[in-house]
Amino acid sequence: MPVSELRTPSDGPHVVVVGAGFAGLAAVRRLAYAAERIPLRVTLVDRHNHHTFQPLIYQAATASLEPHSIGQNLRSELRGLPVELLYATVEDVDVEARRVHLVDDDPIAYDVLVLAAGAETASFGVEGVEEHAFPLKWLSQATRLREHLLATFERLDAAWLRSQAPGSDRTVPNADSTFVIAGAGPTGVELAGALAELIHRVIGRDHPGVRPEGTRVVLVEMGDDVLAPFQAESRRYVRDALEARGVEVRTGTAVEEVGVDFARLDDGEVIPTRTVVWTAGVQANPLASALGAEQTGGGRLVVDDDLRLAGRDDVFVVGDLAGATDGHGELLPQVAPVAIQQGRHAALQAVRHLRGRPTEPFHYHDKGQMVTIGRHAAVAELAGDRTLFGTPGWLAWLGLHLLTIAGFRNRMSTLLNWSYNYAAVDRAARLILPPADHER
Amino acid sequence: MPVSELRTPSDGPHVVVVGAGFAGLAAVRRLAYAAERIPLRVTLVDRHNHHTFQPLIYQAATASLEPHSIGQNLRSELRGLPVELLYATVEDVDVEARRVHLVDDDPIAYDVLVLAAGAETASFGVEGVEEHAFPLKWLSQATRLREHLLATFERLDAAWLRSQAPGSDRTVPNADSTFVIAGAGPTGVELAGALAELIHRVIGRDHPGVRPEGTRVVLVEMGDDVLAPFQAESRRYVRDALEARGVEVRTGTAVEEVGVDFARLDDGEVIPTRTVVWTAGVQANPLASALGAEQTGGGRLVVDDDLRLAGRDDVFVVGDLAGATDGHGELLPQVAPVAIQQGRHAALQAVRHLRGRPTEPFHYHDKGQMVTIGRHAAVAELAGDRTLFGTPGWLAWLGLHLLTIAGFRNRMSTLLNWSYNYAAVDRAARLILPPADHER
Repeated sequence: MPVSELRTPSDGPHVVVVGAGFAGLAAVRRLAYAAERIPLRVTLVDRHNHHTFQPLIYQAATASLEPHSIGQNLRSELRGLPVELLYATVEDVDVEARRVHLVDDDPIAYDVLVLAAGAETASFGVEGVEEHAFPLKWLSQATRLREHLLATFERLDAAWLRSQAPGSDRTVPNADSTFVIAGAGPTGVELAGALAELIHRVIGRDHPGVRPEGTRVVLVEMGDDVLAPFQAESRRYVRDALEARGVEVRTGTAVEEVGVDFARLDDGEVIPTRTVVWTAGVQANPLASALGAEQTGGGRLVVDDDLRLAGRDDVFVVGDLAGATDGHGELLPQVAPVAIQQGRHAALQAVRHLRGRPTEPFHYHDKGQMVTIGRHAAVAELAGDRTLFGTPGWLAWLGLHLLTIAGFRNRMSTLLNWSYNYAAVDRAARLILPPADHER
Repeated sequence: MPVSELRTPSDGPHVVVVGAGFAGLAAVRRLAYAAERIPLRVTLVDRHNHHTFQPLIYQAATASLEPHSIGQNLRSELRGLPVELLYATVEDVDVEARRVHLVDDDPIAYDVLVLAAGAETASFGVEGVEEHAFPLKWLSQATRLREHLLATFERLDAAWLRSQAPGSDRTVPNADSTFVIAGAGPTGVELAGALAELIHRVIGRDHPGVRPEGTRVVLVEMGDDVLAPFQAESRRYVRDALEARGVEVRTGTAVEEVGVDFARLDDGEVIPTRTVVWTAGVQANPLASALGAEQTGGGRLVVDDDLRLAGRDDVFVVGDLAGATDGHGELLPQVAPVAIQQGRHAALQAVRHLRGRPTEPFHYHDKGQMVTIGRHAAVAELAGDRTLFGTPGWLAWLGLHLLTIAGFRNRMSTLLNWSYNYAAVDRAARLILPPADHER
């Protein structure tokens, strides 16, 4: 296969960034800044044409935000910067030949590679997860879950409107009105809160066939508590806030099998449900294994303290794919702040490397963590051991997310939709767009 | 099959409205107003869970507006009103037994029926249209076309970035960079203008591989001119405005066959293209034929002057489905203002009929017509023979559409997106959400 020579106005060594998540985008912005000053070619490759603001993906799934509020087109985002964009899927990397192999396209040659290919949903081999559960990592998955939820509420309503329909007692939960969320990390917790609020405050108000007491939202967590990395006091607050909203929190229990209309737990209980959302874990992009390099738990790639792939001086690994550790040898969490700081760091080190200067080690600056359960209910653990609960935490959460969403339009659109959701006690994104329309 | 008795708090005769387009929604709002004053049950049935603002559907297809700006959830729209909503597809109507038959659901009994089931894309039997052309009637079709267009621009860019790739001369049009629109009615004209502007102003700016001179937008119209119902002066303005934006306007020519990578015209010319958008015509919902009643051209149902189905006193037909005529025996156009006025009229007459009063004939109040070609370019033919061109026409067009979009949030969201598009010379809705993600 011929190696692609990208046509470009700029000369200089070629830095290729794989992945436009938080880490890749942070790296590209820094590299573009450098490319305006020194000879440097920068190429960004992603299999999506947009950056996904994953911390709010559960809001797209619960009709609070439309996909366009949290997906930022990469050409809009990087407009005017000296960056070449390639909308393609990476198949493999040949670190010896310094080539990135693409699906259905010629390979790209690089001088320095920044690998930011992220992680994907892991089913851990649990039976039926891949066939029947809803993953929640990409916008199209969020859209699919949103349409499934909205269609389910419509079905419940139609069933109740007909007095003869069997199983139409709207006060008794059934498989349609029971929603199971596997995994009580931030996504699972925030989804459970958002879903309970959607049912109790919105759907219960305009679907006469859906009564909150006839629905169940069950949050199942294998570990001893929700939100393992949070402090005990925060975890207690979150659990109470979820239960106050009607969420059944089942810790110390794993989902053992998912079927088309049930979820079986490891204590033998079978929950009738047509909706199992799988947020129980992630694993590194399979690209990591293809490299043949050393991997940590979860498939992440072992890196040196400057974020270079162990044993190579021209490959940096950042974000969810990087098995970087903190000062105590613990793997850093797979969250946006780590990814952003690593992306920036790798870009700076790539430039230092290309200019023949020694690289510097990466240090993570932990500024805290946040999670929201619903209106006026959130926890924000800030640096310096301050924790905000309830309305102050919620306002901090809102403000931080509004500021960090990529793109001015997206920030405005999110603000508009949240304002509408709050003021109208409705949800902004309640469309079902049936694929069958395509044939009409 | 048992006839469904809808559970409802309200007594009184049952009015069923089929279709939540402009006509159906206008009827339901009037009926709900009546139901707050007299005993009346009102049910709205639609196969979508939202109203579609069809005049702007081409903007969803060209990434100017996200689907949620022009799709209004019906429960949000009708919240608090005494209306029952049923998300279901109507299969047939038994006018003798007064029953509406649904797909996969029990029939509904009615006392008065308001049929507002609209029209659908008509291929007129042209070969390859159903397989290869893009219809543009529903939001999911607009989304599909948007993703196809954006993916096409990405493919053109990737081809050009590789010097070895054959056919990568970005200044010579090929099948990927040629876009054919069949039908120069309002939707075709507005789509052609929007697509030309998208390519010249936005894509040409941030896709180095897409040069406006290497693309073609061809608008094909069987009739003698674009926009048949407009005045000669307006038609000349529109044609000039389109050509000034690089659109090739081919009137007096029909598309005779559509293939996967070509469109064949009736003069024998074969245009290499992978994108044929079919806006060449509509026909009445097939439901019309199922009734066994008299039909006009295009399959519309013949109605009396009070909009009742000819020969029946308990069925009203409104909107695109109604074969109502003006004072000169001409069929009224299938446009939103006619539908809205008919919906209101039928609702009032339905109530009069139920109260034993004589019905009144329908008179259409024509307030004019508008079409936009792009920034600062539009024609607005107002009542009283005044016509606005250029910026005044464009501002009138913007204002009217902003005011008439259903839902406060949608109006705000449209305003935000248009402001962004105008100020940033970008497009708000540039996402591709690949269905393959569902499997990940």
